[in-house]
Amino acid sequence: MTDGVPSAEFRARGAEAAESAERMLDSLLAPTALPGETLRPPRFLEAVRYAALGGGKRFRPFLTIETARLFGASGTGVCRAAAAIEMIHCYSLVHDDLPALDNDDLRRGRPTTHRAFGEANAILVGDALLTYAFDILADEATDPDPQTRIALVFGLARSAGIGGMIGGQVLDLEAEEAPQPHGPEDVMRLQAMKTGALLRFAVDAGAILGRAKAPARDALSRFGRALGAAFQIADDILDVEADEALLGKRAGKDAGRNKATLVAALGIEAARQTRDRLAQEAIAALESFPEGANATVLKEAAFFAAARKN
Amino acid sequence: MTDGVPSAEFRARGAEAAESAERMLDSLLAPTALPGETLRPPRFLEAVRYAALGGGKRFRPFLTIETARLFGASGTGVCRAAAAIEMIHCYSLVHDDLPALDNDDLRRGRPTTHRAFGEANAILVGDALLTYAFDILADEATDPDPQTRIALVFGLARSAGIGGMIGGQVLDLEAEEAPQPHGPEDVMRLQAMKTGALLRFAVDAGAILGRAKAPARDALSRFGRALGAAFQIADDILDVEADEALLGKRAGKDAGRNKATLVAALGIEAARQTRDRLAQEAIAALESFPEGANATVLKEAAFFAAARKN
Repeated sequence: MTDGVPSAEFRARGAEAAESAERMLDSLLAPTALPGETLRPPRFLEAVRYAALGGGKRFRPFLTIETARLFGASGTGVCRAAAAIEMIHCYSLVHDDLPALDNDDLRRGRPTTHRAFGEANAILVGDALLTYAFDILADEATDPDPQTRIALVFGLARSAGIGGMIGGQVLDLEAEEAPQPHGPEDVMRLQAMKTGALLRFAVDAGAILGRAKAPARDALSRFGRALGAAFQIADDILDVEADEALLGKRAGKDAGRNKATLVAALGIEAARQTRDRLAQEAIAALESFPEGANATVLKEAAFFAAARKN
Repeated sequence: MTDGVPSAEFRARGAEAAESAERMLDSLLAPTALPGETLRPPRFLEAVRYAALGGGKRFRPFLTIETARLFGASGTGVCRAAAAIEMIHCYSLVHDDLPALDNDDLRRGRPTTHRAFGEANAILVGDALLTYAFDILADEATDPDPQTRIALVFGLARSAGIGGMIGGQVLDLEAEEAPQPHGPEDVMRLQAMKTGALLRFAVDAGAILGRAKAPARDALSRFGRALGAAFQIADDILDVEADEALLGKRAGKDAGRNKATLVAALGIEAARQTRDRLAQEAIAALESFPEGANATVLKEAAFFAAARKN
């Protein structure tokens, strides 16, 4: 792992989680699986599937699935929760891409949902994915224990809401509208909300599903927090460096928009150092877990979340 | 009740529920009460409060509070659930009013949220209210029993989601875009999703919180279904008849937009008859409840939901 080459095990687990998430999303979004009895607008269903399927790293599902596995939990319930969390991520991309927000035409190398299906559909697609995520977590097919399901629902609402993802997005917009230098601490707090909260919850959800005890929960919470921060700084660095074709979206757009990034606050070299320190923190947080393939895969995830090229 | 004059009891209960809902919304949306620890964008909080406070009939909270009362349930938990349901209603209005959807400038006699705070804020205000509603229901302050909370979360997700409110909104938009005559059954099914589902759930939530047994649950479900349908037809009739000032929004707009309404499908006289028949159905559904002020107030609600003037 330290030589910068992903292990075969890590690559296999990553591919497996992405495939499981994709398959679960596909089946949860099949017209016959969707809740409700009556009229089904086919064009809208197509738009919902377009927004959720066919791409993405599926990093959040990977985190949920691999964290749950630390405690021997796996199977349909874990995959359902992982898919629900990914739906939240997908909805946030659909809404963030809207003309009134980031006004992006391209996402994962394809037209954004509002470019492909119109703005009205894109707004409602986001609303539908957001709502469906809670439906899935509350469904007993996810876990027979109501206490576990309610912990998942509550955790998701907290991480996705005004104190988490949405709050972070609002602060990000405000930073754009009233550009002023942002100190590194402000940037880190904003990012801990905007992208960190859901990544952290993806880890927490695995721990909840695995019935982890308090010390393991706390260690994983530290892991998720550091990993989430490293992931977002890596994203900011990539925006400056990456080749547009590789990233599948416009590169260099953050600077043009006065986005609050750690690169802007600290310069690229210090941002790289912070990213690497956070990745090490994430790895260190898992030290208490017994050596073995499972914890090692999560440590590699932290390493490669920081070192990623797209 | 049958003489068309609301009883003093009904008026008092309606005012009391509206006040409880307003107070609970105000307290749940106080800056210090909102979830999350860190940065608080004040302008956005103002927009969230603007969207949720200061108006509205609070009919959904009334239904939840009065249904719970049938079973002796009342207090903070019931009010929290009622407020969560009202947040879903408020979010749906904010998103429906957006330029890409209904493009409305006026709501309850005030500028719509996007007119007052901009489109980006309005989109995120809707997302925040939607997410917060689940946060509130999942919180143990709403009910100590996780089974009850999960039933509320699941019911809300079902009624607000693609098989309910959002699905109905999509169908409504499609009807506008491809105008064609809509049969009365299509209209009724669309409306059962768009507005009926959440009204029905407002009643169901009261039954869930009151630990109602199956026969009572079923009766209330029939009540909620008929009431929701009558309410929406009354709305369509009002759109044709009402004075703009009284309604607080533009009147006559449905016809200009090819909205699928029962008035368009059947003509106003048959629409009125259907509305009144449904109100009677709703009242009849409550026959099994012991006579007394509580069930009577709900019956009056069905009567006045149909007979209302705004």
